[in-house]
Amino acid sequence: MRKVYLDNGAGMPLDPRVLDAMTPYFLEDYGNPSSAHSYGNRAKTALATARDQVAQLLGATKSQDIIFTSGATESNNLALKGVAYRAKSKGNHIITTAVEHISVINICKFLQKEGFDVTFVPVDKMGLVDLEQLKAAVTDKTVLISVMYANGEIGTVQPIKEIGKLAKENNIVFHVDAVAAAGQVPINVEEENIDVLTLSSNDMYGPKGVGALYIRSGTKVLPIVQGGGQERGIRSGTENIPGIVGMGKAAEFAKAEMCDEGKRLIVLRDRLISGVLDSIPHSFLNGHPTQRLPNNANLRFSYIEGESLILGLDMHGIQVSSGSACTSKTLEPSHVLRAIGLAHEEAHGSLVFTLGKKTSVEDIDYVIELLPDVVKRLRALSPLTPKEILR
Amino acid sequence: MRKVYLDNGAGMPLDPRVLDAMTPYFLEDYGNPSSAHSYGNRAKTALATARDQVAQLLGATKSQDIIFTSGATESNNLALKGVAYRAKSKGNHIITTAVEHISVINICKFLQKEGFDVTFVPVDKMGLVDLEQLKAAVTDKTVLISVMYANGEIGTVQPIKEIGKLAKENNIVFHVDAVAAAGQVPINVEEENIDVLTLSSNDMYGPKGVGALYIRSGTKVLPIVQGGGQERGIRSGTENIPGIVGMGKAAEFAKAEMCDEGKRLIVLRDRLISGVLDSIPHSFLNGHPTQRLPNNANLRFSYIEGESLILGLDMHGIQVSSGSACTSKTLEPSHVLRAIGLAHEEAHGSLVFTLGKKTSVEDIDYVIELLPDVVKRLRALSPLTPKEILR
Repeated sequence: MRKVYLDNGAGMPLDPRVLDAMTPYFLEDYGNPSSAHSYGNRAKTALATARDQVAQLLGATKSQDIIFTSGATESNNLALKGVAYRAKSKGNHIITTAVEHISVINICKFLQKEGFDVTFVPVDKMGLVDLEQLKAAVTDKTVLISVMYANGEIGTVQPIKEIGKLAKENNIVFHVDAVAAAGQVPINVEEENIDVLTLSSNDMYGPKGVGALYIRSGTKVLPIVQGGGQERGIRSGTENIPGIVGMGKAAEFAKAEMCDEGKRLIVLRDRLISGVLDSIPHSFLNGHPTQRLPNNANLRFSYIEGESLILGLDMHGIQVSSGSACTSKTLEPSHVLRAIGLAHEEAHGSLVFTLGKKTSVEDIDYVIELLPDVVKRLRALSPLTPKEILR
Repeated sequence: MRKVYLDNGAGMPLDPRVLDAMTPYFLEDYGNPSSAHSYGNRAKTALATARDQVAQLLGATKSQDIIFTSGATESNNLALKGVAYRAKSKGNHIITTAVEHISVINICKFLQKEGFDVTFVPVDKMGLVDLEQLKAAVTDKTVLISVMYANGEIGTVQPIKEIGKLAKENNIVFHVDAVAAAGQVPINVEEENIDVLTLSSNDMYGPKGVGALYIRSGTKVLPIVQGGGQERGIRSGTENIPGIVGMGKAAEFAKAEMCDEGKRLIVLRDRLISGVLDSIPHSFLNGHPTQRLPNNANLRFSYIEGESLILGLDMHGIQVSSGSACTSKTLEPSHVLRAIGLAHEEAHGSLVFTLGKKTSVEDIDYVIELLPDVVKRLRALSPLTPKEILR
């Protein structure tokens, strides 16, 4: 059976070249960068190289502005709580959007309990944040604006440069969760006026368990864990050198290859979208038709449930998702799909396809060939399906 | 030149068998355990297996009591803050010791600013916690006792069972930082009445960037990061499956091999200690002579500085430490050596040797052969050395 893994948003394979770069740090150069001897020095050098590589991916002028963490969730916690607690004497208002990753949503809910006011700005039907409402939400108590670069579930890419300009004009710290976007589309923290930015290694074919936070020099952030004062005191804990080396290498490859790979993925993505919409009646695209991630297609099928579709496709060797894996613990429909105005049952009938480096045109054609039958079979079993559709 | 790495306390090599176990999860089974399809299921199974392996190392009866984290520092933060914040309505007093790892010390200092009272119980000259003073410190406001299993710097192993008994009798949560001890000496959370226990993967020859926290069922802990609700809601963030698989395997090997390896290391450790003390005048052992970790020797040399010794030995291919790598960011002498009563200059003249799986008797003899000359040369250069010593 063909293996067609189209759930790269939930987990990506490690690039074998990245594993090759990591292996010496597992087996030979296992020193601690805080050690005074030669093993420590080699670890320090590896750490500095990785910091440069990640800074270059983001167009950051100072490598020291990159702080390594254990992943996107920790980075988002450090970004939001770190900025908010530090700025509390100045103001207690935070602006974010209704379609952020569950970690940002839950951190904001936590901060509400801690005395912060949070405005969740709505998005339009395509998932684009409403710039006018965002502007209108700014008060003299606003200390932080947090907007994701792109949504990993519906693929919509936000107008980050405009939001960055607005934040800068109002002297507000601007945080961007770039987990789904980094390595897919070019990001430049200088041109886009981003002050704080969340990255995940695995979402760029690097190892899991590693992330980073870009913090522009001068932006004040309180640490959320105490310890030995690593990462300039902002993130304590012995540095995960093999993981950090892997993330650095992944960032280097992403920068070098993103443009060509993006073009390739857009062709495959659009072939998948039009192939499915053309062959399956009552199917729709969720998210923006053009301002979307090269690797993302979110498709909606009336009358059936995403969960059954996942299992039906898995039996044919195809892996997809019904939303963010990170929110699968709840049976609630995706907050992102609800925010773009879908009804409960529409949200439940949606599938996320996230393409990757390994995805080929044959993979896409395999899905286009199989999916209509799987949908038809499930619709035949569904009490919601109108009789005339089944003919 | 011979390579003699005796700084395993700062960083350990990954066991190649552990890397073999991890590799499929990097390259083939890269699914997210929250995904509903077959890749997700395989990730879930791998996660459950690792949880069992870590639970078995600790003699924990319930695997679900193991929570995976990004390492020891995060585990200690989750343990101390998590327990303290959750118990705040009951009491605000914490008892710990003067020789804890820098992360525990700094978390306690942070909690002091948050309104907690912290008692730092002293230790004796061997580094053993004073049980009478610990008992006397207990009040009806005490909600947490945190004592390390063994000190990674001076090697002293604490009377954990007695402290566990005291904590249980007083209905106080007992946290143990077992980073330096796990995989070196047997630990049993049931017999020793441990409620919460910190583990680091790399300190058992597992990958860096992974740790765990044992939390006995019924012990209430508030999460310190918000997100997708992974790890039973206690520690959000996409699970680092390859790292967790590696930590599980490392725990399995530690359990199976610890006894024999410990006996081997004790022979080497004692050969190193007596070899050095016999051949170098004015040298002393820090820490307990027998109640100490099999892999640790902390030796003190009058009139010279540990930092110069490190560099002198590194030129001969020998890596050692002058204290915990985690506290190297400060030029202050080790708080552990100060707590056992050493003067500033005595603390500065101490060296930590942490042996490991790769350490051979030839390595030890190489150190015993070289060290006297290095010490002699440095003493000749030191203005502190009395003339009669140099003859």
